[in-house]
Amino acid sequence: MKKPLIFVTNDDGILAPGIRALVEVAKELGEVVVVAPDSPQSGQGHAITLSKPLRLKEVKTFGEDIVAYECSGTPVDCVKLGKFKVLDGRTPDLCLSGINHGSNASINILYSGTMSAAMEASVEGVPSIGFSLLDFSWEADFDSCKPYLSKLVKHVLENGMPEQANLLNVNIPKLKTDELKGFKICRQAEASWNEKYVEGKDPHGRPYFWLAGEFDNKDHREDTDMWALDNGYISVVPAGHDLTKYEAMEGLKAVEQL
Amino acid sequence: MKKPLIFVTNDDGILAPGIRALVEVAKELGEVVVVAPDSPQSGQGHAITLSKPLRLKEVKTFGEDIVAYECSGTPVDCVKLGKFKVLDGRTPDLCLSGINHGSNASINILYSGTMSAAMEASVEGVPSIGFSLLDFSWEADFDSCKPYLSKLVKHVLENGMPEQANLLNVNIPKLKTDELKGFKICRQAEASWNEKYVEGKDPHGRPYFWLAGEFDNKDHREDTDMWALDNGYISVVPAGHDLTKYEAMEGLKAVEQL
Repeated sequence: MKKPLIFVTNDDGILAPGIRALVEVAKELGEVVVVAPDSPQSGQGHAITLSKPLRLKEVKTFGEDIVAYECSGTPVDCVKLGKFKVLDGRTPDLCLSGINHGSNASINILYSGTMSAAMEASVEGVPSIGFSLLDFSWEADFDSCKPYLSKLVKHVLENGMPEQANLLNVNIPKLKTDELKGFKICRQAEASWNEKYVEGKDPHGRPYFWLAGEFDNKDHREDTDMWALDNGYISVVPAGHDLTKYEAMEGLKAVEQL
Repeated sequence: MKKPLIFVTNDDGILAPGIRALVEVAKELGEVVVVAPDSPQSGQGHAITLSKPLRLKEVKTFGEDIVAYECSGTPVDCVKLGKFKVLDGRTPDLCLSGINHGSNASINILYSGTMSAAMEASVEGVPSIGFSLLDFSWEADFDSCKPYLSKLVKHVLENGMPEQANLLNVNIPKLKTDELKGFKICRQAEASWNEKYVEGKDPHGRPYFWLAGEFDNKDHREDTDMWALDNGYISVVPAGHDLTKYEAMEGLKAVEQL
């Protein structure tokens, strides 16, 4: 049987331990092709590079057997340029993005380069999963979650995605394998970041503002990703790219008379 | 009566003709505060700046009476830093973003800095409207649409947004005032960009790839923003930031048994 083709990317850069862990999971289940940023791209959201050219360089980061390229662009650029140049007409059976160092639960899906890369592939019809571990550290333990990631990827390769969504936002609590309670299908918690900036003066006396921020979860219902993570579950949120709020259309009909 | 507070931003930069037109509309209807990028930020999506500090500088771009700042960050940074530093605790009654030079209809909402800025304000509870004119030119005619923009902004200030959505994606065809057929409430068309890159060699002989792309609308139903624009209407899509595909949750329940 032909091995499934698995495209792997991330936003922390091709040298991040998180993508190494994801490649290790993926290569047991299919043929892996990696195109990932050559530098950290956290918080890049769905940014694409329009005003300058991109570079692409083949690397052996994951050994001789894994086709891998580093790209000078954003995570979404990696997906686009990967499709155009590296995959050369082949369509992946699955796109995996991550494992992100830090949470992409709740509203973080908007800011996340990891999730935007996965969404970009899903817009192009490729079933996609973004993974994030709730541990910002470069030395985070990516081994504990591997058995679960492996089960989920295998399940999706064998069963496909539900027809109503081909993108999953998967977040993993910082726990050992035997402490993880399994997967929970959730909705995105309604939360936001309170603005905080560190204000200072640069060596030339000019003021600057450096984004800090404070996560504010206003949504404590038990069907959210935040609840699942707080309670030891791996959260799985099916997500889409149609942002239309259909239920608001009726209330706007008066605008058509303006 | 107290004038409403209107926050204005964009992604083409504070010197773009599009934001000047939007400020002219807004200042007739309320007190205007502008925080906009100091350079073009098209395609920045929901990117935020984490790895370096931001600059903020007061400018008189829109005359002595309009408080305006240019910011070195992305459109989303402008909203966040504007809230933190410029608005100083005041919450705007409305956020207006644009007028973008070029379309943000359909899937372009994901890549658009204009729409991401508006969405960021909406996440923070501020009713927001992003405007885009289907004309990339710096010399585009932003006057023809002004009477319609003015009517819509006035309507939203007086009547508020429907409770199910506080974000509107408004796109305007490139037509004269009397050719515009009015507003149409729509859903986001299901379309995507086909990857195209211009490949070349730089002066040092190294290969580069420069994003071009070709818009591919697969969705020709008559309730979409693409249809409305093609037929002379100003499209209005109510949009949200909860990306959960609720209808896919049931089909994923088997994952909880893995």
